[in-house]
Amino acid sequence: MFSIPVVINYEDTDAAGVVYYANYLAYMERARNACLRQAGFPLAMVRDDLNVVFVVTEARLRYRRPARLDDVVDITLEVETARGASVTFVQQVRRDGDLLVDGRIRVGTLSSDTFSPCRIPDKIRHALDDYRIQ
Amino acid sequence: MFSIPVVINYEDTDAAGVVYYANYLAYMERARNACLRQAGFPLAMVRDDLNVVFVVTEARLRYRRPARLDDVVDITLEVETARGASVTFVQQVRRDGDLLVDGRIRVGTLSSDTFSPCRIPDKIRHALDDYRIQ
Amino acid sequence: MFSIPVVINYEDTDAAGVVYYANYLAYMERARNACLRQAGFPLAMVRDDLNVVFVVTEARLRYRRPARLDDVVDITLEVETARGASVTFVQQVRRDGDLLVDGRIRVGTLSSDTFSPCRIPDKIRHALDDYRIQ
Amino acid sequence: MFSIPVVINYEDTDAAGVVYYANYLAYMERARNACLRQAGFPLAMVRDDLNVVFVVTEARLRYRRPARLDDVVDITLEVETARGASVTFVQQVRRDGDLLVDGRIRVGTLSSDTFSPCRIPDKIRHALDDYRIQ
Repeated sequence: MFSIPVVINYEDTDAAGVVYYANYLAYMERARNACLRQAGFPLAMVRDDLNVVFVVTEARLRYRRPARLDDVVDITLEVETARGASVTFVQQVRRDGDLLVDGRIRVGTLSSDTFSPCRIPDKIRHALDDYRIQ
Repeated sequence: MFSIPVVINYEDTDAAGVVYYANYLAYMERARNACLRQAGFPLAMVRDDLNVVFVVTEARLRYRRPARLDDVVDITLEVETARGASVTFVQQVRRDGDLLVDGRIRVGTLSSDTFSPCRIPDKIRHALDDYRIQ
Repeated sequence: MFSIPVVINYEDTDAAGVVYYANYLAYMERARNACLRQAGFPLAMVRDDLNVVFVVTEARLRYRRPARLDDVVDITLEVETARGASVTFVQQVRRDGDLLVDGRIRVGTLSSDTFSPCRIPDKIRHALDDYRIQ
Repeated sequence: MFSIPVVINYEDTDAAGVVYYANYLAYMERARNACLRQAGFPLAMVRDDLNVVFVVTEARLRYRRPARLDDVVDITLEVETARGASVTFVQQVRRDGDLLVDGRIRVGTLSSDTFSPCRIPDKIRHALDDYRIQ
């Protein structure tokens, strides 16, 4: 399972004293990009060299408990499926092991030239295999 | 059906030239708050006078087409169910009638004192009835 | 003086219960873009037809009083100078007339082809003249 | 000089392909908070135990070159002055040593009870002394 830490600052919170609900989607994007970067595929390289861009086609989040100012949360990532032109990620936000938010994010691959769907490049699919849910 | 317009500025977009995927959740919150405000229930009043805060418990979004810089999009809202301590909104983002994003957002009501679930105040439930899906 | 209203939602606030300090820059951008759009120069048209993009080169803000949830604030705009490849805007955030934040934002004009500085197109400079500080 | 790295993701960029100009203020806040946290003063502790909150009273930014997708930038912090109820930070955004943005941010200290200005707690002032500009 891939994971990155996120420190909660004022920019992340709202007047209810908790992290604003849309921001978890941004943290999940950070984790996806960090995972690809670590595997040797930074986004700008994927776009410019492999001619592929990722677009989120579906997102589902369940909010169980809020994160708060100064919390350090872990954003995890596993791959549920990766085939054709679509990858489904299962992602969670945890604090000291406690589940705060869980999500399922479906991402499509488009040609960066034509913006029509294209197959996931083989080497990216292989890299994602390491994070496959067993 | 309740609706507000949103003008897309640079703050809303990302380097792919389209609206960043998390931002649609913020627009949907704007529409929910505007609907309540128009019905006579601004959020700070709901919190301070009715002792109720809303928290999103679940969000599901499907992204069909992107919005872009200078677009004026409509954010719509309908109420699917409103009972007990939970309201489910069906919300869409449209440009010139075309569906760009659709979402289903479930919101819970908590006591602003104890932060435990409490029934939706009757007068808010009545106000939301006007936006019930037929 | 040009002005737009902004309604403060949860997305705008932070855990201190007030509008997050960076967000005022976004509201000021909204006002500048709305002013240009009203004058007949939406940003995408300026970029695609006039081959000009605006970039902020300097921003100075003084924070006097905070805006809060449910506030409706006015974002104003006046033009201090507009010559060569640079426009300086004086912008304020007011609530019921009270000054909350004031700013001076300097914006440069670049060719959208070469990204080197270019003169402000004459018709945009004329449009901005209407908002010149007397 | 204190410094933190920030990785630029899609959330940070705009349709001009560069980091949105307001976001640098958020990165600078991250650096200030990380500095205090490392010195033993996480924000929630400062608020709850020392009864002090920080509020930005003035911000000045000069934008020299843009950061882009996948860049890793360093956000630096030095303290220009720290006396009475006010700290002035000099902060920069650098990529591989090149200066992209520089800022001067003035922060005031308020009592978290009365929200009136109060002296910087001595131990925080001492901690900030380590980052004093020589």
